[in-house]
Amino acid sequence: MSISRIRKEVDAALRAFVDGQRPALLSISPDLAPMLAALDALLAGGKRLRPAFCYWGWQAAGGQEPREGIVTAAASLELLQASALVHDDVMDSSDTRRGQPSAHRRFESLAVQEGRPGAAAPFGEGAAILLGDLCLAWSSEMYEASGLDAARIADGRAVYNLMRTEVMSGQYLDLLEGVRGTGTVDAALRVVEFKSAKYTIERPLHLGSALAGGSTEVTGALRAYGRPLGIAFQLRDDVLGVFGDPAETGKPAGDDLREGKRTVLVAQTVARASAAQAEVIDRLLGDPGLDAAGVAELRGIIVDTGGLAACEAMIGRYAEEAAEALRTAPITGEARIALEDLAVAATTRQA
Amino acid sequence: MSISRIRKEVDAALRAFVDGQRPALLSISPDLAPMLAALDALLAGGKRLRPAFCYWGWQAAGGQEPREGIVTAAASLELLQASALVHDDVMDSSDTRRGQPSAHRRFESLAVQEGRPGAAAPFGEGAAILLGDLCLAWSSEMYEASGLDAARIADGRAVYNLMRTEVMSGQYLDLLEGVRGTGTVDAALRVVEFKSAKYTIERPLHLGSALAGGSTEVTGALRAYGRPLGIAFQLRDDVLGVFGDPAETGKPAGDDLREGKRTVLVAQTVARASAAQAEVIDRLLGDPGLDAAGVAELRGIIVDTGGLAACEAMIGRYAEEAAEALRTAPITGEARIALEDLAVAATTRQA
Repeated sequence: MSISRIRKEVDAALRAFVDGQRPALLSISPDLAPMLAALDALLAGGKRLRPAFCYWGWQAAGGQEPREGIVTAAASLELLQASALVHDDVMDSSDTRRGQPSAHRRFESLAVQEGRPGAAAPFGEGAAILLGDLCLAWSSEMYEASGLDAARIADGRAVYNLMRTEVMSGQYLDLLEGVRGTGTVDAALRVVEFKSAKYTIERPLHLGSALAGGSTEVTGALRAYGRPLGIAFQLRDDVLGVFGDPAETGKPAGDDLREGKRTVLVAQTVARASAAQAEVIDRLLGDPGLDAAGVAELRGIIVDTGGLAACEAMIGRYAEEAAEALRTAPITGEARIALEDLAVAATTRQA
Repeated sequence: MSISRIRKEVDAALRAFVDGQRPALLSISPDLAPMLAALDALLAGGKRLRPAFCYWGWQAAGGQEPREGIVTAAASLELLQASALVHDDVMDSSDTRRGQPSAHRRFESLAVQEGRPGAAAPFGEGAAILLGDLCLAWSSEMYEASGLDAARIADGRAVYNLMRTEVMSGQYLDLLEGVRGTGTVDAALRVVEFKSAKYTIERPLHLGSALAGGSTEVTGALRAYGRPLGIAFQLRDDVLGVFGDPAETGKPAGDDLREGKRTVLVAQTVARASAAQAEVIDRLLGDPGLDAAGVAELRGIIVDTGGLAACEAMIGRYAEEAAEALRTAPITGEARIALEDLAVAATTRQA
């Protein structure tokens, strides 16, 4: 089974679930149509990474056909992610997501259409908070209704629960680090571990293995591959957030710099900066009005200090650690090939 | 079994669940302690109405001892409610909840303690969004781990899912009505139905009955009692939001007027207002700086127009409809007595 085939099946499962909710929501009121439209727009994009790792974790652990149940359970992770993205965009006041207006901006437009531009900001934010809540509720609803064996669903639920607690905790630690601004590589890595590494790769693999009744050995090997790969994935994200091509990432150039994200890349830069460079970082990083010249200046410092090189070296080391764990993992051959491909995609991607 | 005894058991179940999560959260990072402190403060208050109706729905439908499973499942509704309250307070920018600072205000104080007053507002809001997300995730985690029979949990899950979708939909319609301001009694009642009536009383009863394997007749009778009682409950809430004693409600006097809530009480008033009265309502309702004199002026109009009397008459009619449904419901005698008491408490309360 190819990676792209699974992706299509995940897309179909998501569509089927949302289409199943549509009449129920619209029977409460046709005025709920904008909630569905915002969700449709969000789900039109995305790499479906978490479902992919969940599926291949299941396959790696010897999960048996038919695939329908595991594809549905795996696809539910995309609704969890949709919830996180919508709420994240509210917290960060982001204008765009996946190349489209963010959910709260969409709802703001609705208030303007209703002739209430003055109420647009609180309405947009409130509606987006509710959309994120709905996605979070629906993710567990979809998971529980996946049709997999009840005992397996229960085994997987423990992982699912942990993953939710971890990602929300990681996001809180991220906000806290933004306030504290300790700015150390260690503090940034702690956020990466819970907000991204476990959530995006390690736990989806773990969940897939649990849903297949995978042995402790298989689950352990998958997690040993997933954790460093998850860190490498997030470090690549940090690099793309500063140097990525807007046409590929769907986000304005240098958006992470404007937001002042305290990433590992920034921490590596700060750790190497001269007093003069540190002063520039302090002045420009997190300036919402940062222009192209400011972005270029910060990029220059990230390169000149060796911050970028240090981050790329970390990506290489973590990716190698993941590859090594994969080589010795007691898993199916088909899964090994898919997980190798996913590892390359996660760490060398352009978006 | 008395109402107060069940309440104590629900409190104990909540404490046990949160205490079970505490070490897991703190092992991610001790910096997560403020999340737990904010949740503890929130759960210290509250009437536990939803768990009570869920428990008595179970009892009414012939649920058998031991009670532990149903108490845990019922108590999980309090975490769902905690999520709704925390997010509601963000959306409404409310300063207080249950007589304490609201969650986002607590987190704002934390940012100030960290020496970052300028970052307090976005940090407070972001952290509160995450706390609400965590409560929502934990509510389903607690429900699924209640220990009730798996088939019953699955039956109840369908009700639980519906209830979540309904309350989030009702909250969205509430925001939309705030923007549209049609201001009609019908529009306000539609919000009441989904945001409050079903969520607070009808669905918790429905859930309890489903968890006991209640017959269609019992479930139907409980819902016939719950729906009008839920509307009466919310209309009482509307009246308390304008005329309630701050010492009892834990909210500043006239808070709903300052927020500009488009309640049934307000709609009944607007429908009866003279041109001069309508002009005053238009000018004062929703003014965040509304002072005591303004509150008094609006209260006077609500009384003088007969808006208050109309709302009280509706409360009486809906409460009577609920009482009538209860009289003929095919349920246990013990539950009938408890549900009579709960109906009186829900509609004649001071807070």
